[in-house]
Amino acid sequence: MAQAKTALIIGAGAIGSFYGALLYKAGWQVSVVARSHASIVQQEGYKFESPLGDISWQPHKVYRDASEAVNTFDYVLLCTKVLPQLDRVKLLAPWVGPNTVIALIQNGIDIEAPIANAFPNNPLLSCIAFIAVTRVAPSKVVHKAFGHLKIGGYPINYQQAAEPFAEALIAGGIKADIADDIVAERWLKCVWNTPFNPASVLANGADTLQMLDAPGGEAFIRALMAEVVAVAKAEGHALPEAVIDKNIESTRAMPAYRNSMAIDYLNGRDTETAAILGNVVAIAQRHRLATPRLEAMWALLQIRQEPAQV
Amino acid sequence: MAQAKTALIIGAGAIGSFYGALLYKAGWQVSVVARSHASIVQQEGYKFESPLGDISWQPHKVYRDASEAVNTFDYVLLCTKVLPQLDRVKLLAPWVGPNTVIALIQNGIDIEAPIANAFPNNPLLSCIAFIAVTRVAPSKVVHKAFGHLKIGGYPINYQQAAEPFAEALIAGGIKADIADDIVAERWLKCVWNTPFNPASVLANGADTLQMLDAPGGEAFIRALMAEVVAVAKAEGHALPEAVIDKNIESTRAMPAYRNSMAIDYLNGRDTETAAILGNVVAIAQRHRLATPRLEAMWALLQIRQEPAQV
Repeated sequence: MAQAKTALIIGAGAIGSFYGALLYKAGWQVSVVARSHASIVQQEGYKFESPLGDISWQPHKVYRDASEAVNTFDYVLLCTKVLPQLDRVKLLAPWVGPNTVIALIQNGIDIEAPIANAFPNNPLLSCIAFIAVTRVAPSKVVHKAFGHLKIGGYPINYQQAAEPFAEALIAGGIKADIADDIVAERWLKCVWNTPFNPASVLANGADTLQMLDAPGGEAFIRALMAEVVAVAKAEGHALPEAVIDKNIESTRAMPAYRNSMAIDYLNGRDTETAAILGNVVAIAQRHRLATPRLEAMWALLQIRQEPAQV
Repeated sequence: MAQAKTALIIGAGAIGSFYGALLYKAGWQVSVVARSHASIVQQEGYKFESPLGDISWQPHKVYRDASEAVNTFDYVLLCTKVLPQLDRVKLLAPWVGPNTVIALIQNGIDIEAPIANAFPNNPLLSCIAFIAVTRVAPSKVVHKAFGHLKIGGYPINYQQAAEPFAEALIAGGIKADIADDIVAERWLKCVWNTPFNPASVLANGADTLQMLDAPGGEAFIRALMAEVVAVAKAEGHALPEAVIDKNIESTRAMPAYRNSMAIDYLNGRDTETAAILGNVVAIAQRHRLATPRLEAMWALLQIRQEPAQV
């Protein structure tokens, strides 16, 4: 039997500890960096409620910070939010050795390039999580539904790095597949996220049906989606024509839903507006493409960040 | 000496009681409708702090509601906010007789037609107030600066109604002038208000310099202003070419300023977004004119009003 693979989770919140649980269940040796809750996690591990059954697990090692860093991991999973003030390269650097595969399980558009540029010799896997999971205490996670992970190499496919990772997750109990074009998959996800998430924040936490049912609401969301589709196309990722109708229909078919960015906003936590909206606007501007509604939302969100002068 | 003219103020808040004070000072017999604070106003009148000196005054009569209505006033001044849920025709009707001049001292675009249609035989004066005034208690008003009133007949000039009104206000101590095209004057004011007021609400009360200094902020405000100018032009009111530059420059020359709509919003009071933004969007749609940024703000504000479903 081959030696168990080793993995480190950086940003072991709800998402990170969930995928860590699956790798653990598949027999990997999984460690975490847990800056704020290291002692609790060390003592208690991660307790889960999950439709997958008992996937509670104990990390092999719990690191507090980079002063304890070792760089011999087969895989390092970066599962933090993508925030302008968070230097992801700096977070990764101490833990990435010459043979380490880097896997990003993160939201947003255009989030791979800085990491690929900083670690050009390491295989880079860009992953999109479709999951409903919440950490309710430092070592307690509630996994409500789903878990599907789309995995794709960036900028090339890195098949040898992707396959064992996908296999372990599948062995752990979820759907995981390897996408030929993970950036196209990110655009597809952004057709929903880029309109709904920031609009909900600007509307002080409105849920999906509030947004669609307000006078002019659905037309506004559709117009935002059309702007995202146009930017994706300019980037060489032509999305299926029916994508907007399908997104609206599936949203209307679900119960009213308040998205995670809105929940972060209402709880005073940092939001990934730059990764999900700002980067889309920046790409549109590179292509000299008009995205007035996306730009309006981005400007309003940046105005909110500006310090008051009165 | 001609008999003193009679006037009634409906909506005798800061603005209404201020212009009432000037008419009173000019010798008019001025009454008010004061639904919530009738007893206090009856006893104390309106006390003012003002650079114009002591303009405190006692209304001739203080009416509580329409059950006491008489319709023999020479002038009825409607000084309420313009809100979709407030039926202005119904507010006016009991007090308007066959010879009554109606004067609207109100904000917004396209606010005259419903009144002109309901009272086709009464002269209608549409007035724009340039003033900084705040009611600090039911019968106590602080007038900080300005007071200039632009007065214009709608849909025709109604010179005979406008002139005595302007003369009385000038006698009362402020600048008042008669505009040939009051609707054009409203558009000119909306070049500032329609972008800045709703943007500040959506940015949770941002002041002018926060808005202009945020990344992309000034470009956003300028683009909003350009949309307003385009709608005004489609309505036949071509505004001076330099109007956007002038508005930005004068705003930057002032100290940081939080506008009254933002203050209303932060204090949980109704805001005039429909009159100042919604009506502009509606006019643009009649002209099939694209105003994507104004529409985005209007949609977001309407989403905020939609009841939550979670």
